[in-house]
Amino acid sequence: MDKIEATILGGSGFSGAELIKLLAGHPFARLAAATSTTYEGRAVSDLYPGLDGLTELVFTKPDLEAAAAADLVFLALPHGQAHKLVPELRAAGPAKIIDLSGDFRLPADDYKKWYGQSHASPELLGEAVYGLTELNREAIAKASLIANPGCFPTGVILAGAPLFAGDLVKGDIIANCLTGVSGAGRAGTAATHFCRIDESAAAYKTGGAHQHTPEMEQALGPDARVSFTPILSPVSRGIYSIVTAELKSPATVSDLENRFADFYRNDHFVRILGPGKVPEMKATAGSNFCHIGLAVDKRLGRVTIVSAIDNLVKGASGQAVQNMNLMFGLEETAGLKTAGLYP
Amino acid sequence: MDKIEATILGGSGFSGAELIKLLAGHPFARLAAATSTTYEGRAVSDLYPGLDGLTELVFTKPDLEAAAAADLVFLALPHGQAHKLVPELRAAGPAKIIDLSGDFRLPADDYKKWYGQSHASPELLGEAVYGLTELNREAIAKASLIANPGCFPTGVILAGAPLFAGDLVKGDIIANCLTGVSGAGRAGTAATHFCRIDESAAAYKTGGAHQHTPEMEQALGPDARVSFTPILSPVSRGIYSIVTAELKSPATVSDLENRFADFYRNDHFVRILGPGKVPEMKATAGSNFCHIGLAVDKRLGRVTIVSAIDNLVKGASGQAVQNMNLMFGLEETAGLKTAGLYP
Amino acid sequence: MDKIEATILGGSGFSGAELIKLLAGHPFARLAAATSTTYEGRAVSDLYPGLDGLTELVFTKPDLEAAAAADLVFLALPHGQAHKLVPELRAAGPAKIIDLSGDFRLPADDYKKWYGQSHASPELLGEAVYGLTELNREAIAKASLIANPGCFPTGVILAGAPLFAGDLVKGDIIANCLTGVSGAGRAGTAATHFCRIDESAAAYKTGGAHQHTPEMEQALGPDARVSFTPILSPVSRGIYSIVTAELKSPATVSDLENRFADFYRNDHFVRILGPGKVPEMKATAGSNFCHIGLAVDKRLGRVTIVSAIDNLVKGASGQAVQNMNLMFGLEETAGLKTAGLYP
Amino acid sequence: MDKIEATILGGSGFSGAELIKLLAGHPFARLAAATSTTYEGRAVSDLYPGLDGLTELVFTKPDLEAAAAADLVFLALPHGQAHKLVPELRAAGPAKIIDLSGDFRLPADDYKKWYGQSHASPELLGEAVYGLTELNREAIAKASLIANPGCFPTGVILAGAPLFAGDLVKGDIIANCLTGVSGAGRAGTAATHFCRIDESAAAYKTGGAHQHTPEMEQALGPDARVSFTPILSPVSRGIYSIVTAELKSPATVSDLENRFADFYRNDHFVRILGPGKVPEMKATAGSNFCHIGLAVDKRLGRVTIVSAIDNLVKGASGQAVQNMNLMFGLEETAGLKTAGLYP
Repeated sequence: MDKIEATILGGSGFSGAELIKLLAGHPFARLAAATSTTYEGRAVSDLYPGLDGLTELVFTKPDLEAAAAADLVFLALPHGQAHKLVPELRAAGPAKIIDLSGDFRLPADDYKKWYGQSHASPELLGEAVYGLTELNREAIAKASLIANPGCFPTGVILAGAPLFAGDLVKGDIIANCLTGVSGAGRAGTAATHFCRIDESAAAYKTGGAHQHTPEMEQALGPDARVSFTPILSPVSRGIYSIVTAELKSPATVSDLENRFADFYRNDHFVRILGPGKVPEMKATAGSNFCHIGLAVDKRLGRVTIVSAIDNLVKGASGQAVQNMNLMFGLEETAGLKTAGLYP
Repeated sequence: MDKIEATILGGSGFSGAELIKLLAGHPFARLAAATSTTYEGRAVSDLYPGLDGLTELVFTKPDLEAAAAADLVFLALPHGQAHKLVPELRAAGPAKIIDLSGDFRLPADDYKKWYGQSHASPELLGEAVYGLTELNREAIAKASLIANPGCFPTGVILAGAPLFAGDLVKGDIIANCLTGVSGAGRAGTAATHFCRIDESAAAYKTGGAHQHTPEMEQALGPDARVSFTPILSPVSRGIYSIVTAELKSPATVSDLENRFADFYRNDHFVRILGPGKVPEMKATAGSNFCHIGLAVDKRLGRVTIVSAIDNLVKGASGQAVQNMNLMFGLEETAGLKTAGLYP
Repeated sequence: MDKIEATILGGSGFSGAELIKLLAGHPFARLAAATSTTYEGRAVSDLYPGLDGLTELVFTKPDLEAAAAADLVFLALPHGQAHKLVPELRAAGPAKIIDLSGDFRLPADDYKKWYGQSHASPELLGEAVYGLTELNREAIAKASLIANPGCFPTGVILAGAPLFAGDLVKGDIIANCLTGVSGAGRAGTAATHFCRIDESAAAYKTGGAHQHTPEMEQALGPDARVSFTPILSPVSRGIYSIVTAELKSPATVSDLENRFADFYRNDHFVRILGPGKVPEMKATAGSNFCHIGLAVDKRLGRVTIVSAIDNLVKGASGQAVQNMNLMFGLEETAGLKTAGLYP
Repeated sequence: MDKIEATILGGSGFSGAELIKLLAGHPFARLAAATSTTYEGRAVSDLYPGLDGLTELVFTKPDLEAAAAADLVFLALPHGQAHKLVPELRAAGPAKIIDLSGDFRLPADDYKKWYGQSHASPELLGEAVYGLTELNREAIAKASLIANPGCFPTGVILAGAPLFAGDLVKGDIIANCLTGVSGAGRAGTAATHFCRIDESAAAYKTGGAHQHTPEMEQALGPDARVSFTPILSPVSRGIYSIVTAELKSPATVSDLENRFADFYRNDHFVRILGPGKVPEMKATAGSNFCHIGLAVDKRLGRVTIVSAIDNLVKGASGQAVQNMNLMFGLEETAGLKTAGLYP
C-alpha cells in the first residue's frame, strides 16, 4: 500500500512538532512537508533536538498549492487562521483537512462570542466533523474536514460523556483541570517563565471565561452546563481533570465503572482504571491514552471522575493521527502504540 | 519582657521543623526543647540543614514533665497521640497547649468516624478552641488548649467563610485542592518518591473520603456541605484551593470582593487580590499569608474563589505561632513577617 | 521470521519496566515472562500504569529453568545477584544472557574492591563482553554473555572514547555527571523523597568513591584516570556529563568535532551536535540517543565535552535491546526509534 | 539610631526584588525608593505578589538626584550601565554605592575583553572594593563604592579561597556550577520557557567563555586558572559548585576541613559541613548562607569541594546587604537571619 502523504501547515509550534514526531514513526504515513513562516529553512531537529536522527525535515515556506496536493493537510496554526485558509485549500486541491485549532468546532455565533472573530467560512461548519474519535468514529471515517478537539474538552468530555449518555447527573458539572505548560505554546513570555511556573500553580480565565467551555457543553449534550476552571501546573505535558456532578439517583461506584467500561468497550485508548484506582497524570505523558477513575460520595450523592491525558497527544496531535487513521481506513492505533512516561 | 518559653513534642517532622525555624527567628519566644524519639541526640540542623547557623538545638527524648513546665507546648505529633497525651500534660504542669494534629478538632463521634479511633479525652473537646485565627481570635486569646487547623481546611475555610457569613450560596461547595508533597510527611515511601510525583498530579481519597471534610463543614456552618478532592502536586509546599458554589442571588465580582475585603478587614495575613487577579501558589510559599482571588460566572450564577497558602506555615506551624502570639498578648504578626518565595 | 523469545529476571525495578516497555513495542521480539519476587501475581500495568493497554503481562515467580529455555534472558536484578545466578542459568538452558548489573563488568579483584563481594563466577569474566555497543559491536554480535554498561559510564565513555582513541589528552579526566532520580531505583526512601530532591541538587560518593569509576577507566584505556562526581538532580531521567581534560596539543573545536563525527560515523544513536550547540538533557529523555557537544578553551588548552543520555534507555535497557538486536542479527535500531521528549 | 536610608536603581529585576524583600525586613535600614523605567507607577507587590503585605512601595522613575541624596544606593541594573552612571551619582550627592553588576569588578582591559565595552570610568576602578565579604571585610567597611560579586564567583571563590591561601593545589581548577533559572533574569524568553528547562539541564558558554571566569581567577590569586562551565538547572534559585583540583601534596579530608574551618572561623554565613556531609542546594535557598563540603580522592591526589548558595541572596542581594551592614557599622548578620528552604 502507498503511504498516506501528509503535510503540516504551521509545523513549528508544539502541536506541529508532536505531529512531526508521530508521523516520523508512523508505519503508513509520510510527512512531505512542514511549513513555518518564522523558521523557514531551519531543520526541524534544530528547534526540536529530540527529533535529531528521526527526521531530516527542514521547515519550508507555507505553500497552499503543494499542501492541497497531498492526501491530507494538518492545520496546526494559531486560532483564527484556519477559518480563512480552508476554503482556499479546498479550492487548491483534493487534500482532506484536519484542523487542530478552535476554528471549526463551534457554530458561527458561538465562535464569534468566544473567539472574538466573525467566522469567514460558516458554510463549512455543517460539514466539519468534531474529531473526538471515541464519540464520532463513523462520521470521522467519512469526513473530509475534521475539527480536532481542544485539549481540555478532550479530557472533560471523555470523563463526562457516559454520564450524559446515561442521563445520570443533574445540575452543573464542575470541571477543574490542571494543564501542563506546553498548552501555553512555544513562545517565551513572562507567563511561561520557569521561575513563575516552578513550585506554583495558577488558575486563569476563572469565572467561566475559557473558550473551551462551549465546546465541552456542545459535545456533552443539551443538558450540560459546565463550570470550568483551568489551572496552570508545573509540568510540561498533561491535562488532569477533576469532574464532579450530582447524581440523579443513588449509584455505587461499581455500577458507574461498569457503565463507563461498557460505554468505552471498543475504545483502546480509553482505560477505565479498576476499583479504588485514581489516574496519575504522568502515566499518560507521551501517549495517546486517556485514563479514567471514578468515585462516589454517598453522603452528598455526587460522582467524581478523574481523567488524565497528554495535552499534545490525545489532546491534540495524537488524536489528529487517530482521526487520520480512521479517515484512511487504517487500524486506529497505527503509529500510536507509545507508552506513557513512567517513571 | 521575658520571652515565652516553648517546647515542641514531636519536633522532627516537617511541621515540627517549621516551628523550630519560626521560633528561631521569633523576637519574643524561645524554644527550650524539641523532642524526637527517633532522632534523640541528633542536631536539628543535621536533619534540616537549612537551619544550620540558626539553631544549636539537639533533639531530646520526650519528657512530659519538662514540657509541661514551659509556658507553651506545641504538639506536632502524628494524629492519634495528642488525645491521649493532653490530660497527662495538663496534670504535669501549667503549660498552655497548641495541638497541630486532628485530635481536638472534631466532636468525639466524628473523630471516631473519620480518624478511626475512640477519643481518649472527650471531656476536653468542649474546652479546645479551633485555632483558625481569623475566625476565632477572641476565644483563642483566652484559650489554654488550641486545636490548630488542618492545612486543607485553612485554605478552604478562609476562601468560604465570607460566603456563609453572608448567606450567599446554596448547594454543595466544591473544593478541589492541590497540595505540596510536604503534606505527606517526612517519611520516604513509594507515594513520595520523586519519580512518582515529578511531572504528575494525583488525586487521592476521592469521593469525599478525606478526614478534613467534616472540619471544613463544621467551621463553615450548619448549611455547609463540602465536596472535597485533594490532589497531590509536584511542589514541596502549598495548598491551592479552587472553591466553587452556586450563588443564591446574582452578584458581581466587585460586590463579592468588597464583602471579602470587609470580612477580612482586620486580618493582615489574608490578602484579597484586586480585580482580575488570581493567586499564584508560590507567592505564599514560606509565608503565613493567604491570598484570595474571586470570580463570578454570570452565565451559571456561580462564584469561584481561589486561595493559596503554604501548608506548613499558615496551614500548620505559622498559624500555630500566630495563635501563640494571641494567647500571650503579643502582636499577632510577631515572628511571621516573612515574604513568600518569588521567584 | 520467528520472534526472539525473551525473559526478564527482576522485572519490577525501573530498568526492568523500561525493558518491558521497549519489548512491548519491538517488532521482532516477544517477552515471555518478567519475574518479581515481591510483585508476583500483580499486573505489570498495575505497578507501571503507563503500560496499561500495551502489555497484559503479570509478574511471575522467578523460574530459572523457564528463563533459560528462552532465546535470551535479561538480568535486571540489583548488583550482586547475577554473578551467582549466571552459572546456574547457563547450566539450565541455551539462553543468551544480558546482565544489566555491575557483576560482569570488572575483573574479579576490582569487583571485590568496588562492590564489596568476592565474585562467584570469575571464570566467566573473560567471556563476558562489555556491552557499550558503539565500541564493541563485533564482539557483542558473537557473545552469549553481555555485561551491559552502567548509566554513568555510558555517558562518560561515549564522551571520552574519541579523545583516547586519538591520544589527544593528558592528565586526569574530570567527569561531573548529573543524574535523574530514577537511577536511585524504585524504592521510596528519605533519599528519593520529592521534598528532598525538588529545587535542589546533591553530589554524592564524592572523592572518587563511586563504583562506576573503574568501569569508565577500563573502557577508555590504560592511560585514563577519571575524577568522577555524580550529582543527583531534580529530574526523573537522564545522565548529563560534563567531561573536561587537558589537550596534548592545541586543537580547534572543528578539528575535534570532525574527529568525533568520524569516530561515530556508523553510529546512529550517537549525535555529534553542530558548531556552538550544547546538548539539552531532556532532548534524549525516553530515547536511545546520546547527544554530544564539544568546546575548546584555547586559553587553558582544555577540551570540554558534554553528553546527554537517558539513564534508563541508552544507559540501561535501551542499550540492552540494542545489544540484543546485534546478537540476533537484527537491524541495530529495531524497536528503538523513539524520539526524546521535547517539550 | 536613625535607620539607613537606601534607594535602588533598577528595582524590578530579580536582584532588585530580592533587595526590596531583604530591606523590608531589615531592622536598621529603610528603603526610600526603588526605580524602574518599565514599571514606573506599579506596586512592587503587583510584580512580586510574595511581597504583598510587606511593602507598599511603588516603582518610581529613575532619579539620580534623589538617589544620591540617600545614605546608600544599590545599583541593580543590567551589566553595562553602572560604569556610566556612577560618576554622575557621585557628583549628585553623598550616597555610598553598591553595584550589583559586573561593571566594577575587573580592570578596564579585562572588562572590555569579557563584557565587550570600553569602561567609561576607569579612574574609579582602583577605588571600588570587591565585595566578597568574607575576603575583604576591612576594605568593605571603609569603602564608598562596592563591586558586589557575581553569583558564580561567590560560590567558586568561597570554595576555592582556602586552597590558594594555603598554597595547596596546582594546575587548573575545574569549576562546574549548576545555576537556578532566576540567574537568567526576569524576561520571558525561549531560553527561560518552563518547557525547555523542566526535566532538563543545559550547559552554556562552554569552553571558558563565561565572563565570570576572570572574576574568579582575580579573587583566587595570581596562580589560579579556572576552567568554568555553567549549567542551567531546573530550579529557581541556587548556585551549586563542584570544584576540583590536584593537591600539591597528600592531605586527608580532615586536614582540609580543619583548614577551611580555620579560614572561615569568623564567618557566620560560611558553614563547613562535618565529615562525610555534602551540601544540598536547597538548604541554602532563600538564605545568605554558603554550605561547603570537602572530599579527597587519594587515588588521584585530588580534592573536590562542593559549595551551595542562593544566587539571589549570598550570590547577589544578600551579600549586598551584608556589605551594607559592614559599611554602616551594623552587625554583619542584621536582616539576614533567614533559614534556607527545607523542605
